[in-house]
Amino acid sequence: MDRTRTFSWHDPLLTSAAAEGRTGLEFLRALIAEKVPPPPIANALDFKLVDASDGYARFEGTAAEFHYNPIGVVHGGVACTLLDSAMGCAVMSTLDARHAYTTVQLNVNLTRPITRETGRLIAEGRIVHRGSRISTADGKLVDAAGKLLAHASTTCMIFDRPQSRN
Amino acid sequence: MDRTRTFSWHDPLLTSAAAEGRTGLEFLRALIAEKVPPPPIANALDFKLVDASDGYARFEGTAAEFHYNPIGVVHGGVACTLLDSAMGCAVMSTLDARHAYTTVQLNVNLTRPITRETGRLIAEGRIVHRGSRISTADGKLVDAAGKLLAHASTTCMIFDRPQSRN
Amino acid sequence: MDRTRTFSWHDPLLTSAAAEGRTGLEFLRALIAEKVPPPPIANALDFKLVDASDGYARFEGTAAEFHYNPIGVVHGGVACTLLDSAMGCAVMSTLDARHAYTTVQLNVNLTRPITRETGRLIAEGRIVHRGSRISTADGKLVDAAGKLLAHASTTCMIFDRPQSRN
Amino acid sequence: MDRTRTFSWHDPLLTSAAAEGRTGLEFLRALIAEKVPPPPIANALDFKLVDASDGYARFEGTAAEFHYNPIGVVHGGVACTLLDSAMGCAVMSTLDARHAYTTVQLNVNLTRPITRETGRLIAEGRIVHRGSRISTADGKLVDAAGKLLAHASTTCMIFDRPQSRN
Repeated sequence: MDRTRTFSWHDPLLTSAAAEGRTGLEFLRALIAEKVPPPPIANALDFKLVDASDGYARFEGTAAEFHYNPIGVVHGGVACTLLDSAMGCAVMSTLDARHAYTTVQLNVNLTRPITRETGRLIAEGRIVHRGSRISTADGKLVDAAGKLLAHASTTCMIFDRPQSRN
Repeated sequence: MDRTRTFSWHDPLLTSAAAEGRTGLEFLRALIAEKVPPPPIANALDFKLVDASDGYARFEGTAAEFHYNPIGVVHGGVACTLLDSAMGCAVMSTLDARHAYTTVQLNVNLTRPITRETGRLIAEGRIVHRGSRISTADGKLVDAAGKLLAHASTTCMIFDRPQSRN
Repeated sequence: MDRTRTFSWHDPLLTSAAAEGRTGLEFLRALIAEKVPPPPIANALDFKLVDASDGYARFEGTAAEFHYNPIGVVHGGVACTLLDSAMGCAVMSTLDARHAYTTVQLNVNLTRPITRETGRLIAEGRIVHRGSRISTADGKLVDAAGKLLAHASTTCMIFDRPQSRN
Repeated sequence: MDRTRTFSWHDPLLTSAAAEGRTGLEFLRALIAEKVPPPPIANALDFKLVDASDGYARFEGTAAEFHYNPIGVVHGGVACTLLDSAMGCAVMSTLDARHAYTTVQLNVNLTRPITRETGRLIAEGRIVHRGSRISTADGKLVDAAGKLLAHASTTCMIFDRPQSRN
């Protein structure tokens, strides 16, 4: 095995603890501003959150050889990961500090093969339904020219954030 | 960033080229027997194909800190990646040497949070509909005790493998 | 328009009111025993609940000309309706008298065309994940010979049943 | 059973035969103009195609008591049927006279309960990915005020239309 990659990360509990006391959007903006360490998976697969507003989140990454599957293109799971991130954060951006979310379902259409030559990967998530217990979002994965690579939708459950004890 | 991981891989075209002239199942068995190098994504996320038979494929991995998302659990994309692999290979296992497949859609239900403590991750894919142009499969992701972590289904398109020129 | 069909039904609130004070399974068994009037949609599309047990429900119907879409086969929505019924009732069958459910998402693969010649339609739903707030189920639609016509999965939200005031 | 509904329809093969020699959009416009009889399912559930253009289709119906499920609201299958129609016809509207399509998968999020009081149901489908073998579309179901009731996506397979023999 002649190709090698090394990546680093922080204790992920430092990241998740930073969500306490912040609205979803405040937390996402702290991630973008690098006041909060990025989640390990973002470093593992080489993508990051670059923009967030109410009901919207955008991630960017770069298609790489280390993303490849056995049939010689980027694994569909990489597209799923970026879209799951973008859609989940689009939901999170709508939450106040007393609520949290978890993704219970996602559906992904892989519409074009992704290769190293694809280059930049841009995943945008947008909220579709804002509910008190269930919210939904959809997402698109495009290249730098805006060509559609994949699209998706998700179902997220909203719940009361367990309050810290101090 | 105080935690680091290094992984290696081979040129993924060595892997995909090995599919030529082999049935889907022969190719998967060559991967299991390590006669064909594993796809890079398997090393990047630390999982591998461990079993395949007609209409069935099984992948295993281990939940790790580097899989974590911003909310302090394993990213849903990791579950998607293992399930996509297991379901896609379940479809591939049914193909003769003149056909190939591509995944056009997958749907995933994430039913339990996955953490480092979850340990072993086992993804099994099984073909549901064998078609000449479209095949479908479903999949389950469980821990070592068989507890269900996620389940999924997929739609794959079957096409004639482009024949090599020699 | 030279073909005509007439169907009848009861006030659907008689049906839904009968769920109060019954477990999900007791309610489904009362429907099967015709102690509770069938829901109007079942008469509109000609199908009915024929079996239910803990985590399982089975509906049967008959493919008919009045189910046809513009491309000359049974509309995919008919398969969706039977599968949604079977999967939702599989979830309902697991609930005690203090809980109710609503379907928030379903995913359907239509694997074979359905025509009048298909005849008997059998939809079976089975619970996959029993959760306190989210349950999931999957379903299969087959003909009398067991040939697979469609398969599906669903996400249902569980909530406390509003208690009646008497 | 004290409520009754009667509906009528034409031989559905008159409808599907009218697709021959027409582009997808020509066929849809002939349906709207009532030069081609509506498909039976549209009369059975009381909805119809009201608009179509390249990559777009719109259906309208009215929520009715005869659509009700056992839990006292309109059956999710009715939303699925309208959305499947809108999304499938959005794909059909992009096809020339030599191609046909079939829906292989659809995913639906049911975001609000639908009752008789909901009134008008408007389902819009829009193409998302135009492919030579696979196209995808998404859809929204709203009420007259534009409130979102459900949203969906679909995967359709495109194939050569069998040519008639004369």
